[in-house]
Amino acid sequence: MGLIVQKFGGSSVASAEKLEKVAEKIINEKNAGNDVIVVVSAQGKTTDRLISEEKEITDNPSKREHDVLVSTGEQITIAKLAMLLIEKGYKAVSLTGWQIPIVTNSEFGNSRIRYIHKETVLDLLTSGNIVIVAGFQGVDENLNITTLGRGGSDTTAVALSANFNAERCDIYTDVDGVFTADPRVVKNVRKLDKVSYDEMLELASLGAKVLHNRCVEIGKKYNVPIYVKSTFEKNSVGTLISNQKPLEDLIVNGVTKDDNISRITVIGLENKIGKTYELFKLLAENNINIDIIVQAFGETFIKNITFTVKMTDLNRTLKLLNENKEKLNAKEILHAENLSKVSIVGVGIANKPGVAAKMFEALYERNINMHMISTSEIKISVLVDIEEAVNAVNSIHEKFFK
Amino acid sequence: MGLIVQKFGGSSVASAEKLEKVAEKIINEKNAGNDVIVVVSAQGKTTDRLISEEKEITDNPSKREHDVLVSTGEQITIAKLAMLLIEKGYKAVSLTGWQIPIVTNSEFGNSRIRYIHKETVLDLLTSGNIVIVAGFQGVDENLNITTLGRGGSDTTAVALSANFNAERCDIYTDVDGVFTADPRVVKNVRKLDKVSYDEMLELASLGAKVLHNRCVEIGKKYNVPIYVKSTFEKNSVGTLISNQKPLEDLIVNGVTKDDNISRITVIGLENKIGKTYELFKLLAENNINIDIIVQAFGETFIKNITFTVKMTDLNRTLKLLNENKEKLNAKEILHAENLSKVSIVGVGIANKPGVAAKMFEALYERNINMHMISTSEIKISVLVDIEEAVNAVNSIHEKFFK
Repeated sequence: MGLIVQKFGGSSVASAEKLEKVAEKIINEKNAGNDVIVVVSAQGKTTDRLISEEKEITDNPSKREHDVLVSTGEQITIAKLAMLLIEKGYKAVSLTGWQIPIVTNSEFGNSRIRYIHKETVLDLLTSGNIVIVAGFQGVDENLNITTLGRGGSDTTAVALSANFNAERCDIYTDVDGVFTADPRVVKNVRKLDKVSYDEMLELASLGAKVLHNRCVEIGKKYNVPIYVKSTFEKNSVGTLISNQKPLEDLIVNGVTKDDNISRITVIGLENKIGKTYELFKLLAENNINIDIIVQAFGETFIKNITFTVKMTDLNRTLKLLNENKEKLNAKEILHAENLSKVSIVGVGIANKPGVAAKMFEALYERNINMHMISTSEIKISVLVDIEEAVNAVNSIHEKFFK
Repeated sequence: MGLIVQKFGGSSVASAEKLEKVAEKIINEKNAGNDVIVVVSAQGKTTDRLISEEKEITDNPSKREHDVLVSTGEQITIAKLAMLLIEKGYKAVSLTGWQIPIVTNSEFGNSRIRYIHKETVLDLLTSGNIVIVAGFQGVDENLNITTLGRGGSDTTAVALSANFNAERCDIYTDVDGVFTADPRVVKNVRKLDKVSYDEMLELASLGAKVLHNRCVEIGKKYNVPIYVKSTFEKNSVGTLISNQKPLEDLIVNGVTKDDNISRITVIGLENKIGKTYELFKLLAENNINIDIIVQAFGETFIKNITFTVKMTDLNRTLKLLNENKEKLNAKEILHAENLSKVSIVGVGIANKPGVAAKMFEALYERNINMHMISTSEIKISVLVDIEEAVNAVNSIHEKFFK
């Protein structure tokens, strides 16, 4: 008997029929005596449709107006879901981002939540209402509509859970939880009952795409238990993301891949304090997102530095580096295209000897070449040719989960 | 060089292509040195689509949630129009009802404007912005979204004009102004250059359907010059609605018809003070909308009273009256179905002898029977059989405008 936050994504609310299923999940929690806050996304392809209509008008829309436009999608869903629950005899009230309000900064399209007012939501809950909140949206201090960017509705749900001290946050989706690998890529994947926030962060950033990093980060910061569950499977237990150590003795919790990576090596960067900073400052100023960085010190006063960027950023990164080659005192700029990053994630990795060796063995057995290796406390990533990626993931998954 | 308010209806903003035409009209005013506030409706069939989606969920939607749902239509239009103007190099900002805010009472679906805040709009105008406002919507004092009901976007436009003391309010529509009769019914209609607020009120309530009464009432109260113009005709002069007497020597300004009227006669109502009040109080309490009332005193202590209701209200009105027959001391309840109200409107009617006679002559010539006559300062209405209505309107129009 506490407060439960439930979040339903676009595919879960795509039609009147699917909203019935959603209403059922909500009513179950309410009838169990809980207070319930529900966060929903825009229905099905609504956001895509709005964006394609926007493209008829301009290829470079005002960011403020873009947010005014796309935020209508979630507003439609909350109204429909609230009226459905009222129709079924429950007290329900819909709230947009500005009605709560969820106050954000003014970075349209990708804004950050500053604070969430408590009074309106608490009053509605106290008087017995199910509160239906539009995900993905907020309002800045000048009353402009803002949106939270990718994974925004998950962020809304976990932020509300933290703000109102929810017992748990249930993220309903079309899969039954978090798996050891992408079921579309690997056979015989296993569903994880529990993962830690840190593992989930690595899994998400490595391309697992179940939850966006931002919502997991908020969950971790405020210690919100997050369940990823299926909307359509009955009695879905899902996966719990929390700060608990996994009960199972799994060393590795997941194998992921991220395609369309390119690798750039700056050869002969002067081995002087500040040169590395200068390089990455230049890239940051040009909004180039760097993923892995590997630096191998040589024995001389020269160093080579290697990093990865998305394929879509490759050309402008190369152009930028070549323009600044002299300024950076770099000798040569090398690159490799069409790579995939294949990674294993698990809290056990750091403490268990032989995990890396086991991963490399899986690749060796299938004769897959590694273009780069990078490790952290809870993950090991390698770059392989994109056409070897599926093969690599399967081989590694088999090795750890057979 | 003043403030102009422009309003564009649903068919004027129905597509990206049509928004281009709208942008042109806006830019013309802006380039002429004016401040411009633009009010828009939902695009084309958007509201209809939202309502049909709503019907998939419930036939009896929560009124609050209905307003949350349908108000998204105008929000989509303002965002698109603002980004189009920005794309064209103009400063433009969209505002929803709650962002201004336009504060209304809490009667969802049919709310009344209480006040409009000035600061946000004035700040934006002062800094050179074209302000694009979502019509039809407001917000109540508890931050609930409200809508203004039928003709709501016109009401928004005229209310903003009054609030910001606009030089004029241009209502753009798909016709070129106000005509002497409905062009779909009558041949050789004439466009009126000017009509008074009162005439427009009669024309609107009599079925001319160019402007909703509420917006004309606000225009009259605050003396806002309203132009009805065509979005798509170049150099449309339109019709001016103001308190000016028409320059032309037209006695009659329009001929209208309103179909699906029924007439009810209560025979033998006791001729006692209070009995008439009792009758209409009963009807009002049951939300039955009465149009014309005619009462003819007899020579006895008995009176008959006749009034009209919409065909859709006929059955429940008859049921109600028969249930209360004894209480009202009425002898008999008679009725006639399937009638049309045909009316002429013009400020000259009261002062010009022979206008009524001329109207009746037109009907007599075509052998059309009148079931009821009602006159006011600026209009004469008669009831005819519905199948004679088009014939009647044409005959009268020919008589006055040939």
